[in-house]
Amino acid sequence: MHDNAFTFYHDTVRPEWVDYNGHLRDAFYLLVFSLATDGLMDRIGLDEAGRAARQRTIYSLQAHVTYLHEIKEGTRMRVDARVLAHDAKRIHLYMEMFADSRADDDGPVSACEQMLLCVDTTGPSAARFDPDVLVKIEALHAQQATLSPAKYAGRAIALPSRRQG
Amino acid sequence: MHDNAFTFYHDTVRPEWVDYNGHLRDAFYLLVFSLATDGLMDRIGLDEAGRAARQRTIYSLQAHVTYLHEIKEGTRMRVDARVLAHDAKRIHLYMEMFADSRADDDGPVSACEQMLLCVDTTGPSAARFDPDVLVKIEALHAQQATLSPAKYAGRAIALPSRRQG
Repeated sequence: MHDNAFTFYHDTVRPEWVDYNGHLRDAFYLLVFSLATDGLMDRIGLDEAGRAARQRTIYSLQAHVTYLHEIKEGTRMRVDARVLAHDAKRIHLYMEMFADSRADDDGPVSACEQMLLCVDTTGPSAARFDPDVLVKIEALHAQQATLSPAKYAGRAIALPSRRQG
Repeated sequence: MHDNAFTFYHDTVRPEWVDYNGHLRDAFYLLVFSLATDGLMDRIGLDEAGRAARQRTIYSLQAHVTYLHEIKEGTRMRVDARVLAHDAKRIHLYMEMFADSRADDDGPVSACEQMLLCVDTTGPSAARFDPDVLVKIEALHAQQATLSPAKYAGRAIALPSRRQG
């Protein structure tokens, strides 16, 4: 398990996050990804002070979570994130969660895509990112071009047709 | 706001679920949907006693949440659910969340799709639903054919190409 420029968050599976199977409940994977998104906002100038000064915040439009491995209470994990795409108002974010209980070679335990929208808090209404924020988003986007493809991005949920298991 | 055969869950936005915007945080929409999924499991014979007796449980494979309206602390909401499709081992579930603070005519505040897998807890490994469980799943699936199309199902996350906001 290692950190790099793409690591935005660390946490440990808390007792109150575990379901009847003894595993991190589906919604709490997304909570960890959501906290990682807060970490990304901090890095692009939209931390608490930045949000107040700019009268800007971020809303989630969509989130897609892929569950690859169950993880148990007490497991330490990290979230790596990258900007797959963006425009003047939106960020298409991709994240992977890695667990200490597994080697990085095993791949992530979960992946999450999010579409985020910049919002003017005086409306609220959709708004452009401030120019200095956009520069930081573009830098993150440029960085991700050096990585292998985002394996679990772009998925829709569907059963293979006529499959009967 | 009304209940019907498709309503699987009620809750109220709790103080600890609210983010820095004063709204239900993205992950806690999914928690409410996840609790609604537990309600569905209860109805198909996979409540706690059923899981123990059958040595079967449900894992989430994927979840997709669409956020349509923000809702504030104290808002009462309900979740309606339906089975869009299934095979011998999987359920493709679709849910919509409605808030008391809005008329039903305004539509849902959020929608969620999930792909759920039946798991033999002695493995754990993917397993077929027991026949009596499958009958209940089929009945839910047949019921949903009477409803209007699942408006927010089948989505993937992507920016419109070349859109500059």
